[in-house]
Amino acid sequence: GENFQRIGAFKFRGACNALAQLTEEEKRIGVIAHSSGNHAQAVALAAQLLGIKATICMPENAPAVKVEATKGYGAEIAWAGNDPADREKLCEKLAAQYGYKIIPPCAADEIIAGAGTVALEIYQQINVFDFLFCPVGGGGLLSGNSIAAKGLCPKAKIIAVEPERADDAFRGIRDGKLYPSIDPDTIADGLRTSLYPLTFKIISKQVDQIITVNEKEIIDAMKFLWERLKIVVEPSGAVSLAGLIKWAKQKGFQNEKVAAIISGGNVDLTDFFNKYYQLIEGKY
Amino acid sequence: GENFQRIGAFKFRGACNALAQLTEEEKRIGVIAHSSGNHAQAVALAAQLLGIKATICMPENAPAVKVEATKGYGAEIAWAGNDPADREKLCEKLAAQYGYKIIPPCAADEIIAGAGTVALEIYQQINVFDFLFCPVGGGGLLSGNSIAAKGLCPKAKIIAVEPERADDAFRGIRDGKLYPSIDPDTIADGLRTSLYPLTFKIISKQVDQIITVNEKEIIDAMKFLWERLKIVVEPSGAVSLAGLIKWAKQKGFQNEKVAAIISGGNVDLTDFFNKYYQLIEGKY
Repeated sequence: GENFQRIGAFKFRGACNALAQLTEEEKRIGVIAHSSGNHAQAVALAAQLLGIKATICMPENAPAVKVEATKGYGAEIAWAGNDPADREKLCEKLAAQYGYKIIPPCAADEIIAGAGTVALEIYQQINVFDFLFCPVGGGGLLSGNSIAAKGLCPKAKIIAVEPERADDAFRGIRDGKLYPSIDPDTIADGLRTSLYPLTFKIISKQVDQIITVNEKEIIDAMKFLWERLKIVVEPSGAVSLAGLIKWAKQKGFQNEKVAAIISGGNVDLTDFFNKYYQLIEGKY
Repeated sequence: GENFQRIGAFKFRGACNALAQLTEEEKRIGVIAHSSGNHAQAVALAAQLLGIKATICMPENAPAVKVEATKGYGAEIAWAGNDPADREKLCEKLAAQYGYKIIPPCAADEIIAGAGTVALEIYQQINVFDFLFCPVGGGGLLSGNSIAAKGLCPKAKIIAVEPERADDAFRGIRDGKLYPSIDPDTIADGLRTSLYPLTFKIISKQVDQIITVNEKEIIDAMKFLWERLKIVVEPSGAVSLAGLIKWAKQKGFQNEKVAAIISGGNVDLTDFFNKYYQLIEGKY
């Protein structure tokens, strides 16, 4: 459950690993990143802990809770449009202008290696596993963990799960080419990005299958995690379980050890709790 | 975190212990209980597992999610008014009519002993503790755990935490008499009941202090648990942490080991998830 991770998502693993490897000069000038939320917080927190200046390019439709947390870790926000390409362009522009080091969301060895420690921890807890379900957005989490999982359990099947409404990786692996993610309209906001050449290459080699889940299946899985396991998981974090449930219904498992990576738990609960605060005034 | 317990609350511990000790004749006829929700589910599930018929007297304002879960475990619901006394009376009436064995919510040795295993598990995990914060409603959880905690860590301070708006235990222990809980209007629905003669007696002897928390403090603590620890906790379950935070602000701790019992995680999330399902139709 990466929802229990600091910043509430797996992204801290990669950001921390990447920032720790900067040169003194790079640390002095500062870093920049683009992200809809979780990578933003990860870079902001890692930078704060290491005393490095961070600027984050975020889309205007990023969840408010993630924007607030990023600011809370002392990062500066640079606003970009909602298309993933917008914030990438802004990030490159500002990096060129101020000399900031770009910390990519997933297309870098240090980020991928950091993310892959999830599979290592699963292995340390349950020893061998037969299936690993992992969400795929930009592909950093999936790349790192498919490499780690295949290294630890060579027979394990790595199943990537992607929202139907942002299925660029599914189509890309099927067709053997890298597709952009154009106006991906899924509730799983952390998975709206497309693969990168590096992650596309790793995933093509390491992942056994990519399956897609629809919006209802994602929300059903999220609801199950909240209501039955009592854990707060964001839509993107529930995608792997949605895939696991779909697989169980369609193909079933035979006494196999199955793991799913719950990738994050950052949900905007402002409205939910405002309702509770409003109740105080009246009678229950 | 008793929110992770089966039925989502500590009550399964006591119900299971109580039902396991019934005679064969009592098991054949069936059991009855009265509860606003968590004890209802606990008795229903324990009865289902042991193949015993269960009838539960519930108030009309019980949270829908708890009513549905109770029905889901195969119990029959008998509806009573919202005053705690109403369902007690109905329970006694039906028990007399059909010969059912009453499984009290907390005023019985087996229930109290079962509940007290929480402190034992905390002790097994963190060894010695200096403070144990525990919510108080009917007093079963507090009675069992104050006995267990004092037995395991004689120097530990047991601090009971009660909603200001249902402060019958606070006033009762202060004045040395048992007060009824009249129209308790707190969001912490699991703590609206008053103490029983048995729990009053145990608490008077074992508990170091009772403190109260207001509605805002309860919701603040609940929000912290959801947003920061990413766990789903019901208002009653957050009361102990609300007390701990208040204590930390007013008196502070000095390198002491502090534990708080999070007593349950049953929250009605229907509206919350309906909003997500409605989003599917539009654009995010």
